[in-house]
Amino acid sequence: MDCDSCKYANNKIDLIFETNHWRIFLASDQTYLGRSIVDCKRHASSLSDLSKDEWLDFAEVVKKFEKAIKKSFNADLFNWSSLMNHAYQQKPFNPHVHFHVRPRYEKEASFAETIFKDTNFGKHYDRVMHTEIPVEIRKKIIEKIKKNL
Amino acid sequence: MDCDSCKYANNKIDLIFETNHWRIFLASDQTYLGRSIVDCKRHASSLSDLSKDEWLDFAEVVKKFEKAIKKSFNADLFNWSSLMNHAYQQKPFNPHVHFHVRPRYEKEASFAETIFKDTNFGKHYDRVMHTEIPVEIRKKIIEKIKKNL
Repeated sequence: MDCDSCKYANNKIDLIFETNHWRIFLASDQTYLGRSIVDCKRHASSLSDLSKDEWLDFAEVVKKFEKAIKKSFNADLFNWSSLMNHAYQQKPFNPHVHFHVRPRYEKEASFAETIFKDTNFGKHYDRVMHTEIPVEIRKKIIEKIKKNL
Repeated sequence: MDCDSCKYANNKIDLIFETNHWRIFLASDQTYLGRSIVDCKRHASSLSDLSKDEWLDFAEVVKKFEKAIKKSFNADLFNWSSLMNHAYQQKPFNPHVHFHVRPRYEKEASFAETIFKDTNFGKHYDRVMHTEIPVEIRKKIIEKIKKNL
């Protein structure tokens, strides 16, 4: 069946790193600097469906990612979510396990001549703001994160 | 330091079940029938801070919870999130790891003479709607889930 996450697996441009069971991509929307998507390599359909190995590997992803983003951009907090609503908009439902992670910043962050301001720090992430970042700057963000992995 | 989650640990009314490392409470807001909060028993400050044991135990919580809610109310999907923004509203920041889980329903659910309608199924959970449920009905919801654990 058609699966966006499975198709996205070959996206080499936005890939930050991968582990045995997960691929970590920088999101094109960088309202929250370092915002990324963590895709399960397997077409797992729910969090209940994840194996012990996949969970332990995910725990390592979380540690590695949070440490690198703190070191790169001085993030204060990370909002993690696994919702998968989009897969339930048309039948047959075909979810693929992934997480969204939004780093949150008390102070404004500046990188590659761009200012990133977390205007609602301490509150739920905003879903209206979209800050699409040109691919050249995304590449620089990815390079910086990679150096700190 | 003052911590709402640590204080909440003694809430016996809304406790659904507990494991070695986690306590699962029914939320008072039941916009999404079965909405719950999963609190780490330890005052862990971030997902990076969780031990392997805590992650593996969390994986079991996810399985047990999702299975019981599906059996109890026929949920289709589960939105999981760990944001912890509230802890960053005043200093000193004092986060305590917890997850929110919102079961999502394609069809309306009926329980204890109450209709629960997931009006935005397939889309991000709504944060404006609040459906506070009387304690008597919350107790019935908890009983039902417990029977299916």
